[in-house]
Amino acid sequence: MTPIYFDNAATTAIRPEVLERMINVMREVPGNPSSSHAVGRKAKSLIENARKTVATFMGVTAAEIIFTSGGTEADNLVLNSAVRDLGVKHLITSPIEHHAVLHIVEQLEKEYKDLKVSYVKIKECGSVDTLHLGQLLASTDDKTLVSLMHVNNEVGNILDVEGVGKLCKQYGAYFHSDMVQSVGHYDLKLKEIPVNFMAASAHKFHGPKGVGFAYIEKNSGLKPMIFGGGQERGARAGTESVHNIVGLEEALKYAYKNLDEERRQIESIKAYFVNELSAAIPGVKFNGNCADNSKSTYTLVNACLPIPPEKSLMLLFQLDLKGIACSKGSACQSGSDQGSHVLEAFLNEEDKVKPSVRFSFSHYNTKEEVDYVVKTLKEFIED
Amino acid sequence: MTPIYFDNAATTAIRPEVLERMINVMREVPGNPSSSHAVGRKAKSLIENARKTVATFMGVTAAEIIFTSGGTEADNLVLNSAVRDLGVKHLITSPIEHHAVLHIVEQLEKEYKDLKVSYVKIKECGSVDTLHLGQLLASTDDKTLVSLMHVNNEVGNILDVEGVGKLCKQYGAYFHSDMVQSVGHYDLKLKEIPVNFMAASAHKFHGPKGVGFAYIEKNSGLKPMIFGGGQERGARAGTESVHNIVGLEEALKYAYKNLDEERRQIESIKAYFVNELSAAIPGVKFNGNCADNSKSTYTLVNACLPIPPEKSLMLLFQLDLKGIACSKGSACQSGSDQGSHVLEAFLNEEDKVKPSVRFSFSHYNTKEEVDYVVKTLKEFIED
Repeated sequence: MTPIYFDNAATTAIRPEVLERMINVMREVPGNPSSSHAVGRKAKSLIENARKTVATFMGVTAAEIIFTSGGTEADNLVLNSAVRDLGVKHLITSPIEHHAVLHIVEQLEKEYKDLKVSYVKIKECGSVDTLHLGQLLASTDDKTLVSLMHVNNEVGNILDVEGVGKLCKQYGAYFHSDMVQSVGHYDLKLKEIPVNFMAASAHKFHGPKGVGFAYIEKNSGLKPMIFGGGQERGARAGTESVHNIVGLEEALKYAYKNLDEERRQIESIKAYFVNELSAAIPGVKFNGNCADNSKSTYTLVNACLPIPPEKSLMLLFQLDLKGIACSKGSACQSGSDQGSHVLEAFLNEEDKVKPSVRFSFSHYNTKEEVDYVVKTLKEFIED
Repeated sequence: MTPIYFDNAATTAIRPEVLERMINVMREVPGNPSSSHAVGRKAKSLIENARKTVATFMGVTAAEIIFTSGGTEADNLVLNSAVRDLGVKHLITSPIEHHAVLHIVEQLEKEYKDLKVSYVKIKECGSVDTLHLGQLLASTDDKTLVSLMHVNNEVGNILDVEGVGKLCKQYGAYFHSDMVQSVGHYDLKLKEIPVNFMAASAHKFHGPKGVGFAYIEKNSGLKPMIFGGGQERGARAGTESVHNIVGLEEALKYAYKNLDEERRQIESIKAYFVNELSAAIPGVKFNGNCADNSKSTYTLVNACLPIPPEKSLMLLFQLDLKGIACSKGSACQSGSDQGSHVLEAFLNEEDKVKPSVRFSFSHYNTKEEVDYVVKTLKEFIED
C-alpha cells in the first residue's frame, strides 16, 4: 500500500528534477569550494550561482544570503548573535513559534541574565495580537528583536509581516521571521516587508533535507554561530554541502516557476478536503484560520475532530495503519506525548480535549486521496 | 583535460556505491524522521541504523554518536558546551590545529573572560610536544579540556592519541580530538584511546559534504549548540539530512571494508611520489614527519620546494593550468593570501620563504599521475 502523504508541512518529497541535478553535482563536481584550483572553483561557482538565485527570488542581494544546515540553524544563528553581538536586551516572540525559536530563546535567557523575554498574546483565532505587540514595543527602551513566524507550521495562520515589519521599524526594533513554511509557497520580497533577518529550509519546498538559508541584512553586524574556515564569506564555517545547496536552488526555482499552477491545484485539494470533511463529520472544527485561505496558508488544514478522549488515543495509530500519513502538531513533537504548544495557546478548554490533526498538502496529492482519508475518518468516528 | 586530483585532504570524491545508496534514499524515503507515521519511521530507522554502524566502527555505543552538519560543527559543539555547560575553565590546544578548533577557542576566549587558553609547544618535526602538555596539565588546578587533532590536515603528523589520552586521564582533564583526517583511514577504538569527545566528517572518506558526527561520551553532560526540535536524542536540533547520514554510513562501511587494500595502494602512490620527487628535484624537503608513514598519515605529502620567492607566486597557478589540483595549506585558507599557520609554527626561517605544497592521495590516484605531476614540477623549477 502506497501511503497517502498528507504531512507536507513536516517535509516534502524531493522533486525529480531537483534530484537529477543533485546527482549530477555529486557525480561531476567533487571539489571543495574553498580550494583555489579548477576542481574547487567549479564547486564554488555552483554555490555562488545558487546564492544569486535565492537572493533574486527573495528580493535581496547575494551577500545577504547565508546557507545553513537548515531552518533551525538559521533561526539559532540569528537569535544567538542578536543577543551576543548586536546588544539586544529584549526578545519579543510568541507562544506559537516553532521550537527552533522558542528553545534557543529559553537557552539565551539562561545564558544572559539581563535578557528580557516577552511573549505576544495570541488571539482566539490563533493569530498574534499585533496591538499587544505594539504595546510591548512602546513600553520598552531596550534594544529589541521581534521574532515572529510568517506562516504557522501547525495551524497555518499567516502573520501580517508587513504590519509587523512597519511596527518594528517605527520602534527601532529588529524583526526576524521564521519563514520556513512560506518560502517556496508565497512570493516574498524581503526588503519590502521589511525584515532584518529570516530563516528558510529546503525540505519544505521539495528540496533536500539538511540545507536552508538565513537572510541577514547587510551591515547588520550579525556574526557566526559556527566558527572555523572562512566559508560563506566568514558567516558560517564548515565545508559547504554543495549538492544540498544546489538542490535548494533547484527546488526554489521550480517552486516559483510552478507557483500559480501548483497553488491552484493545492487550493482545490484543500477546499475539497474542508468541504468533504465538513459534510461527512458534523461537529468538525477547523483550528485557527485554516479554513480561510486569505488568513491562512493554502497548504494545510488543522482539524479538531469530535472524538471522545478515550477513543482519540487510537486515532493516529489507526490512520497510520490505513496508510495515511498526517500529524498531531508538528513532526518535531510527534514522537512525544506532549500536546501541541500552539493549540494550547488559543483553543478553548472544550476543544483542547478533542484530537486535532494536521493534514498538509502538496501538488502530488489528489482528490481521490481526500476521499479515502475522509471515508477513513468517518468510519473511525462512527465505529 | 581531466584534472589530476591530489587534494584528497581537502575533500574526496563520493564513492559510486555511496552515491547509489543516497539516490535510493532520496527517491524512496521522503519522510521526516521525527514523524511518527510509517513514512517517518522508515527515515528514522535509516538514521538509527547508521548510528549503530558508526558506533560499531568507533567502538562506542550508538547513544554516543551525534550526527552534525560536518566536522566543524562537531568541533564547535564540543568546545562550546565544554566551556558553557561542563565548567571547563582552561582550554589546552596547539597552534597547528584546524581553524574549526582555533577559531571557536578564540571566540570562547572573547565570551568567557575567566577562560584560560594555553597552546602546547610544537617540536621541530611539527609534532605536539607532549612533555610540554604534561607540564601544562600539571601546573593547572582548573577544570581543563585538551583539544588536539589526531592527524594534522596540512603536514600529516600523527598525534600519539593514546599517550595524550592517558595523560589527560591522569590529570582529570577532558580530551577532545578532531579526527577528521583519520576516521575512515585508520582503525579507531575510541574507548581504548581514550577520548571523551571527537569530531569527524564524511567528505574526507568519500562520503557526502555537509554531514559529520561527534562522539560524546555517555553521561558527560555535554549539551546542544543548536536548539529546537528533539532530534538526535535532544543533542542537536533540526530535521536530519537523511540521505547525507546514510551516505556517511555507507562511506564509512566501504572505507573500513577496503581499508587494507586501499591503504596499501595509497602507500605505494605516496612512496613513489616521495622517491620520484626526491630524484627529480634536488633540495626538495618533506615538511614535518610526512615522509615517514610510521609518524604521519599515508594519505599526504607536504613538500617544501627549492623555488625562489619571486617565482613561487606562480607555482599553484601553473599547476592549476596544467590540470593539477593540490594545495598550499588547507583548503579553508587557500583563497586567502595568508601563509599556513601550521608551517609557521615549526618551519625554520629559510624554509618558510620557500613554497610548500600539500599533495594528498586517494585510491583513485595512479603512478602515471605521479609521473606527470613530478615532471610538471621539475619543468617549472628548471624553466
